[in-house]
Amino acid sequence: MNTFGRIFRVSVFGESHGACVGVTIDGVPEGLPLSATDFAADLARRSPGDKGTTPRREPDEPRLLSGVFDDHTTGAPLTIVFDNEDVEDDDYGLFDAIPRPGHADYAASVKWDWANDPRGGGMFSGRMTVALVAAGVVAKKALDSLSFDAKLVRLGGSDDPKEWDSLVEKAAADGDSLGGIVECRVEGMPIGLGEPFFDSVESLISHAVFSIPGVRGIEFGDGFAASDMRGSQHNDPFGADGPAKNGSGGVNGGLSNGAPLVFRVAFKPTSSIAKSQRTWNFKDGRQDTLEIKGRHDVCFVRRTPVIVEAVTAIVLADLV
Amino acid sequence: MNTFGRIFRVSVFGESHGACVGVTIDGVPEGLPLSATDFAADLARRSPGDKGTTPRREPDEPRLLSGVFDDHTTGAPLTIVFDNEDVEDDDYGLFDAIPRPGHADYAASVKWDWANDPRGGGMFSGRMTVALVAAGVVAKKALDSLSFDAKLVRLGGSDDPKEWDSLVEKAAADGDSLGGIVECRVEGMPIGLGEPFFDSVESLISHAVFSIPGVRGIEFGDGFAASDMRGSQHNDPFGADGPAKNGSGGVNGGLSNGAPLVFRVAFKPTSSIAKSQRTWNFKDGRQDTLEIKGRHDVCFVRRTPVIVEAVTAIVLADLV
Amino acid sequence: MNTFGRIFRVSVFGESHGACVGVTIDGVPEGLPLSATDFAADLARRSPGDKGTTPRREPDEPRLLSGVFDDHTTGAPLTIVFDNEDVEDDDYGLFDAIPRPGHADYAASVKWDWANDPRGGGMFSGRMTVALVAAGVVAKKALDSLSFDAKLVRLGGSDDPKEWDSLVEKAAADGDSLGGIVECRVEGMPIGLGEPFFDSVESLISHAVFSIPGVRGIEFGDGFAASDMRGSQHNDPFGADGPAKNGSGGVNGGLSNGAPLVFRVAFKPTSSIAKSQRTWNFKDGRQDTLEIKGRHDVCFVRRTPVIVEAVTAIVLADLV
Amino acid sequence: MNTFGRIFRVSVFGESHGACVGVTIDGVPEGLPLSATDFAADLARRSPGDKGTTPRREPDEPRLLSGVFDDHTTGAPLTIVFDNEDVEDDDYGLFDAIPRPGHADYAASVKWDWANDPRGGGMFSGRMTVALVAAGVVAKKALDSLSFDAKLVRLGGSDDPKEWDSLVEKAAADGDSLGGIVECRVEGMPIGLGEPFFDSVESLISHAVFSIPGVRGIEFGDGFAASDMRGSQHNDPFGADGPAKNGSGGVNGGLSNGAPLVFRVAFKPTSSIAKSQRTWNFKDGRQDTLEIKGRHDVCFVRRTPVIVEAVTAIVLADLV
Repeated sequence: MNTFGRIFRVSVFGESHGACVGVTIDGVPEGLPLSATDFAADLARRSPGDKGTTPRREPDEPRLLSGVFDDHTTGAPLTIVFDNEDVEDDDYGLFDAIPRPGHADYAASVKWDWANDPRGGGMFSGRMTVALVAAGVVAKKALDSLSFDAKLVRLGGSDDPKEWDSLVEKAAADGDSLGGIVECRVEGMPIGLGEPFFDSVESLISHAVFSIPGVRGIEFGDGFAASDMRGSQHNDPFGADGPAKNGSGGVNGGLSNGAPLVFRVAFKPTSSIAKSQRTWNFKDGRQDTLEIKGRHDVCFVRRTPVIVEAVTAIVLADLV
Repeated sequence: MNTFGRIFRVSVFGESHGACVGVTIDGVPEGLPLSATDFAADLARRSPGDKGTTPRREPDEPRLLSGVFDDHTTGAPLTIVFDNEDVEDDDYGLFDAIPRPGHADYAASVKWDWANDPRGGGMFSGRMTVALVAAGVVAKKALDSLSFDAKLVRLGGSDDPKEWDSLVEKAAADGDSLGGIVECRVEGMPIGLGEPFFDSVESLISHAVFSIPGVRGIEFGDGFAASDMRGSQHNDPFGADGPAKNGSGGVNGGLSNGAPLVFRVAFKPTSSIAKSQRTWNFKDGRQDTLEIKGRHDVCFVRRTPVIVEAVTAIVLADLV
Repeated sequence: MNTFGRIFRVSVFGESHGACVGVTIDGVPEGLPLSATDFAADLARRSPGDKGTTPRREPDEPRLLSGVFDDHTTGAPLTIVFDNEDVEDDDYGLFDAIPRPGHADYAASVKWDWANDPRGGGMFSGRMTVALVAAGVVAKKALDSLSFDAKLVRLGGSDDPKEWDSLVEKAAADGDSLGGIVECRVEGMPIGLGEPFFDSVESLISHAVFSIPGVRGIEFGDGFAASDMRGSQHNDPFGADGPAKNGSGGVNGGLSNGAPLVFRVAFKPTSSIAKSQRTWNFKDGRQDTLEIKGRHDVCFVRRTPVIVEAVTAIVLADLV
Repeated sequence: MNTFGRIFRVSVFGESHGACVGVTIDGVPEGLPLSATDFAADLARRSPGDKGTTPRREPDEPRLLSGVFDDHTTGAPLTIVFDNEDVEDDDYGLFDAIPRPGHADYAASVKWDWANDPRGGGMFSGRMTVALVAAGVVAKKALDSLSFDAKLVRLGGSDDPKEWDSLVEKAAADGDSLGGIVECRVEGMPIGLGEPFFDSVESLISHAVFSIPGVRGIEFGDGFAASDMRGSQHNDPFGADGPAKNGSGGVNGGLSNGAPLVFRVAFKPTSSIAKSQRTWNFKDGRQDTLEIKGRHDVCFVRRTPVIVEAVTAIVLADLV
């Protein structure tokens, strides 16, 4: 079921190489100002452009099919569609027989009969995340007292942004790819969001974050480092305004505690690489190699901070 | 809503210092052999006993109220209750005014009116996890072709189990506490579990895992280390039997790929420590200190592997 | 899934001839006064006693296992259990082979393997409705500005209550059974409850009402008679205080309009009758007859008004 | 939440006087043959044309935005959109102040701020049912061993179809409207669909049916008449092939019993009538009258049988 949320409910549809990708949001508060131009800034952040990102160019013009009248939300389901235009008719069908390492081809070919849709990985494509970003824009509108800030803090093993372009260049020259870490911070959090079982703030955020393609890990506040600390180090003493430091990342016992929500997300390197890889040819029953062509990101993590923000906003709009 | 799952649906109830904790499982397959003795092994793994665990002793005798006849499940909702016996009537009410660092007291007192239940942290207690372990036992029964193995791989900053008891002793002597990391491994995974949006295997596992008290992070396969790798290193080449290594932790594109599911969970150090901590006295409006008495674990992470297994089994029973 | 509701969520468990029947309610507002004695009045209305009702006697003492402290709800899941005591060990197993006309035996034996629970019809028993009544008591507490009144308006084809006892006597003498119609009326309805798609007030009420065993029809306001009217007759003109008559039964376009909610529920005659009935013997593959013994109601509809009220209150508690 | 179903999940969006109405179906089995022409027959049955139906003409061309490739379903979410073309820009906004008897105007104006969308009743319009019919077409494809047949059995108080056109003419001449009763019959039902609590077959069918605008009642099998019968009359004896008659309408104890599913739905007369009606002017605070212009059905029930079939198919596709 391609749906997330109970009150602010987001459903995605569409395919990377089909007519469009889209999203329906049910439970949008009525009366929010909203027009197509509101999407431009976040969509631009997701668009390729940085070194290491794909040359596929989509205009990414949102069409608001329902739920908006006179540039305000009506409270009815809000459907947003992005037509696909720059589609190359790659024959992804072959990946059914010779699966790409790191991709869902193998598992999906066992689960579904791909003969039905041999186009571009269907819903597994990063193209679907344009729908998440659009839903995130609406969610942020509904959460105007909160501020969201996700940014890349590590790329290709380096914490120094000055090195990133050259790391990407080297990886590209080798026909290889890089990963990185995104940190997301939300200020203005109300106190008491979340439930002890099973809908803790971390549960819901991680649920949504792991639906972004390529995520390998998530940690809140001190994160994995907390497991090496003593309680007296990790615990956040209270002052008059709440927690006096933020080792918890803004969540205690599954509930938001008023401190900024802080978490980090580990993205793997792009799976599609030009370099030759070993794989199995399930059609002919023999070891084979694969060099992946097509217009892929060397380092798609550069495009992900706005997606992390979007799914975070979707979760919080559902909780508030 | 204290419920998880769609097909195999687990709902917890009860309070740490109330009459009982319990769980109802809806969607249990009919005809599974099940009796009270089946719970003994996993309940024992959760019970205190290791150095650094609480002296609170509960007999943990499961009472099967419904859904079982003649030592087999009937397919009707299965309710299991654990009576609370070793209850000390601590006055947790005071933590409403003087919140314990690291606990949900502060956030919960804003969210709810604790005057209604000043007993032992209500549902925020680790005591609730006995219900999760019980549900996990039933889930494992429903998944008899899978094998689950979670174990502690790091404690107090050390990967060497020979050092753990002495680390715990030192922390206890200091009135302090320790955390650690649990690794969970599931063998026999079918191929194709999970959905691309939004119910990837990682999404559901992390959702459930973060409902265990004290979790700060989760990572699958190569995890955070993957973000420093190149694609050619992290990608798992395919052989005749599927992935030839397991950097993905058994999941590609949100779907299980047949390799073992492998993930690690970071637990923070126990929040309740004997050592004096700074906190705020919200009643008197002044800085205060708190020394937490009561029967708490110095290192509750020693009791968590079976809980991690349990929530993993619950998720997989829902997906299969 | 034995659960109803999204915000005020009711889950039933237990079996007619098992240890207990019970209910867990999640989403109960905190701070409602509630103790075991609050259930007495409604439970008494459901209890047998009127002419034509079963001699099976259960003390129907609710045990509140969780979610209540100091005679007030805590907001945590509220579990209520009724132990079964007056259980006769009838062998219902035979109905697997020789199904009782009007019962679920035949369909259930195809759906499930009844060998697992040959006791009293499991969850199909009217005994389960004690759990609904208990949940209804809690729902009514949460809805204290509303008043509920369901009553029997027709029995055995007669609208005159003076005739009912004698109709029941005659049916009993013939080893036969009777049905009837219950009318439910809720005053104090807020305006605007419900949604156009798919959760209209009528959708949710009818969903819940048809889960009561023995219901054959439901109609709101003018009901089936409305289909014979002209618009000018059926439409309710508006006055200063809302609708000036109540042909709509209090619902327009799926939304409550502030007028009393009024609907009628048709109950079939009790299926279990002493009189000989034709059935098929699926074990021996031949036509057979069945005379049903045991302690059954000649006219269970006399016990249903409080059950109709209960499920109505459950729906409204979820909507408000 | 404008969604129905758990496995075959239907979500509607759009507005009567907006850009389009549409539906997304999640959980469609992959590989069903499906193209735009498959919708023609059912859409035609819903289209006006019979005497007494609206002159508003929409081409009702379904556009399949996603979930279909090469005229087969892919298993991904299926989105179907119907563009609105024959839109007159009626100012429905005035009905906020002077509500139309029988409509949701009054309740909706209390619930929402209609200033946001003063166009044609938004989601309350019968126009939305084109989305239900489209979803029904897909559901029927997924249920090809079942046959659906809903038809009008009563109109304006007459069971004789020869009288219907003249009854409609008379009502139209009086500026008035008529209602009627639709009977729906499904053959080929599998045995054992449905659950005792709370998702009986009748619960789910009635839930969906009451989301069709204008429904006032529903009854299964003998329906309200069953409440006047004795058990020996109403019970269906069993023969070798299951129930030997069908007083139950195909459902026992909430489960389908293999006999045809048979139910009747009472539709009220069209609420919008040309004849002058009393209403309240909430703007000026005085009694007022209203004559409704616009292109409305005198007898919309003539267009409803295919809608009843559609929601029935949606429910059964979810249950199977």
